[in-house]
Amino acid sequence: MTFDVSKHFSDRANNMTASEIRELLKVTQRPGMISFAGGLPNPESFPIEIVGAIVEKVLRENGAEALQYGSTEGLPQLRQLLWEKHAREDNANEGDAVMFSNGVQQGLDLLSKVTINQGDTLVLEAPSYLTGGMAFRVYGCEIFAVDLDGGGIRIDLLEETLAGLRHLGRLPKFMYLTPTFHNPAGVTMDLKRRRQVMDLAYEFDLLVVEDDPYHMLNYDDIEVRNLKSLDEDNRVVYFSSFSKILSPGLRLGYAVGQKELIDKMVLAKQTADLCTNTLSQFIAYEYLAGGHLDAHIDKILTLYRRKRNIMVKALGDNMPEGVRWTHPAGGMFLWATFPEGIDTRAMFPKAAERHVAYVHGRSFYFDGRGANQARLNFSHASDENIKIGVERLSAVTLEELERVRAEKKLVA
Amino acid sequence: MTFDVSKHFSDRANNMTASEIRELLKVTQRPGMISFAGGLPNPESFPIEIVGAIVEKVLRENGAEALQYGSTEGLPQLRQLLWEKHAREDNANEGDAVMFSNGVQQGLDLLSKVTINQGDTLVLEAPSYLTGGMAFRVYGCEIFAVDLDGGGIRIDLLEETLAGLRHLGRLPKFMYLTPTFHNPAGVTMDLKRRRQVMDLAYEFDLLVVEDDPYHMLNYDDIEVRNLKSLDEDNRVVYFSSFSKILSPGLRLGYAVGQKELIDKMVLAKQTADLCTNTLSQFIAYEYLAGGHLDAHIDKILTLYRRKRNIMVKALGDNMPEGVRWTHPAGGMFLWATFPEGIDTRAMFPKAAERHVAYVHGRSFYFDGRGANQARLNFSHASDENIKIGVERLSAVTLEELERVRAEKKLVA
Repeated sequence: MTFDVSKHFSDRANNMTASEIRELLKVTQRPGMISFAGGLPNPESFPIEIVGAIVEKVLRENGAEALQYGSTEGLPQLRQLLWEKHAREDNANEGDAVMFSNGVQQGLDLLSKVTINQGDTLVLEAPSYLTGGMAFRVYGCEIFAVDLDGGGIRIDLLEETLAGLRHLGRLPKFMYLTPTFHNPAGVTMDLKRRRQVMDLAYEFDLLVVEDDPYHMLNYDDIEVRNLKSLDEDNRVVYFSSFSKILSPGLRLGYAVGQKELIDKMVLAKQTADLCTNTLSQFIAYEYLAGGHLDAHIDKILTLYRRKRNIMVKALGDNMPEGVRWTHPAGGMFLWATFPEGIDTRAMFPKAAERHVAYVHGRSFYFDGRGANQARLNFSHASDENIKIGVERLSAVTLEELERVRAEKKLVA
Repeated sequence: MTFDVSKHFSDRANNMTASEIRELLKVTQRPGMISFAGGLPNPESFPIEIVGAIVEKVLRENGAEALQYGSTEGLPQLRQLLWEKHAREDNANEGDAVMFSNGVQQGLDLLSKVTINQGDTLVLEAPSYLTGGMAFRVYGCEIFAVDLDGGGIRIDLLEETLAGLRHLGRLPKFMYLTPTFHNPAGVTMDLKRRRQVMDLAYEFDLLVVEDDPYHMLNYDDIEVRNLKSLDEDNRVVYFSSFSKILSPGLRLGYAVGQKELIDKMVLAKQTADLCTNTLSQFIAYEYLAGGHLDAHIDKILTLYRRKRNIMVKALGDNMPEGVRWTHPAGGMFLWATFPEGIDTRAMFPKAAERHVAYVHGRSFYFDGRGANQARLNFSHASDENIKIGVERLSAVTLEELERVRAEKKLVA
């Protein structure tokens, strides 16, 4: 007899179920599959030789320190470097502190831990980053998702939602936004809306969480002003990462925000995992301080810009009438909207049969919407496979459209 | 005006306060200080050159994979290697799975997340690993600590506590034990008691958490049978780490336990930080699979055995009558008990003035006991500094004892 461990699970654990996406992603492991499903950087973007040279230097000069426990908040010289960067670019000030975490994901988990009580509310974009939302929900909050469009979150709907929540005495613990090169929507919030978002934050006295992992993947060199740079009273906590500009396997994210909040998150991190990987932080420090990022970023931009262009062109060349998609100026994702009647979840097995995969739209909502939408990643597949994959997906879409039209006729 | 973030904190956050130890540890940074306070491995134990050679090989052969996101549960070949080790040594079986985490600390946090509801109870040893207890308490459990002695946790008291909790309908969510080379107590549970612990676990139907980070730091080559090896129905979840045999900065801990439990912990890890550092896991895999640990472990044992012996001898040579300490067969800590009347917290500033530091005993209890106890780490200081530090501490102790006796006389 095996011990019945399930009766020892917390209520929290009983609410955790394997994400549907993780199951879908298993399909993408099949041989011959072209996957637009994951959110993986392309290994060609990894500065493998640079990392090798840096590790050699770090172990030679600081081996004992690089392999030892570090402080919970992170490597001092690296934190200082990033504080200076955000002081320059985003008006971070003496009231702000920087902390490192095991990727931005851990930062979001720690933030949730120190802010969310069971029954609290949150506001975020619809669609939104799935695993972010899951991290928030572990702590028992109710999520209110506000539609975005090509210019970012819709301010009219945001104001309406906040006013409604205030009326109910349930103002959100925070507002979670990815203003730049949005995952999954591929859109960037315009400056006017950024100012309006901040005005609403002041009016409703909200904590603002800005998730900005794709900032440097700016293929069209558009001007971006972070919410943090518009922040007048240290109410924006800003998250970014080395995952897309160095390596996700090194698990390095960081937060810049008001000291009192960061201090609490550091306390939470102490019991969560003591400290972030020290060697990784030394690598990141040398990568920045040694000027390696500056030398390498053009390679990454050239690679991803080309892949984005190939996917956008392939969609234009192949997709049947009625399908729309975003034209992201940066980041890693396109967001496709199919004609009404197409259900991207139902279409997935048919696409998989033709060896092409995506993530269906419902995964990025918390209310069942997104049935006719899908997220397409353009960073990971080879140039050739992007073309072939889009052709396959277009063929499946055409079949589905014809089926839907035939059914409509039948009903009529 | 700065935004008042404190009103957005969760109840959980409001209960988090900076650990007194962290404040004490700041004192240990003072120049000239000899610290027995931390729990740091000695950098001399780090295989820096081996790590350098391994990283070079990993980046050359598997660079793209080693810098990419990995699966949440960990690197498959490393998990397999550890499952095989524990199948060999601890009867781990097909019902068990292995997962990696950002140190054992994260494993304990994830375990807490998936088991503890507000108001649950836990049983652990008194004294016990401080930051473990803090991780459990974040989730709102009440801790019942059972005294240990030279042979490990006291079975009579454990049975009494469990019977009492059953009577109250509050049986613990789990029993957290460090049977081998205990932190802070420096004792090892004898085999008879290990069997008795397991018998109580069956009788009360308890989940057993075995924390075993010091297992390989076995200076006297004593025979140790893990609780996991006595486990008849997959109720022991076993935690260990690469922190003490490779490097703590690489943040690599792992858990071996019943699949259903590990699966839940993996789900919790997904929202906590997606995955563990991939490069670190490749390093650990090569360290084990390449036989480097076997070649290196004798160096570590020789280093720490000598340091333990130096500290034990110095205490015997210098400490005044009435002071007792454990003689650990392994691990990194001695546990000292001073005569009644000495308060190690009150004595700390006097010790710090003489440039020697320790952690006072109360830090390892949850009920205010331990006033006349202290933890002494012997792994980190240089041989010479261990001697000097013990001399300083002995001198402070003698002064305190004389003060206590003079006060007693005055009262009498």
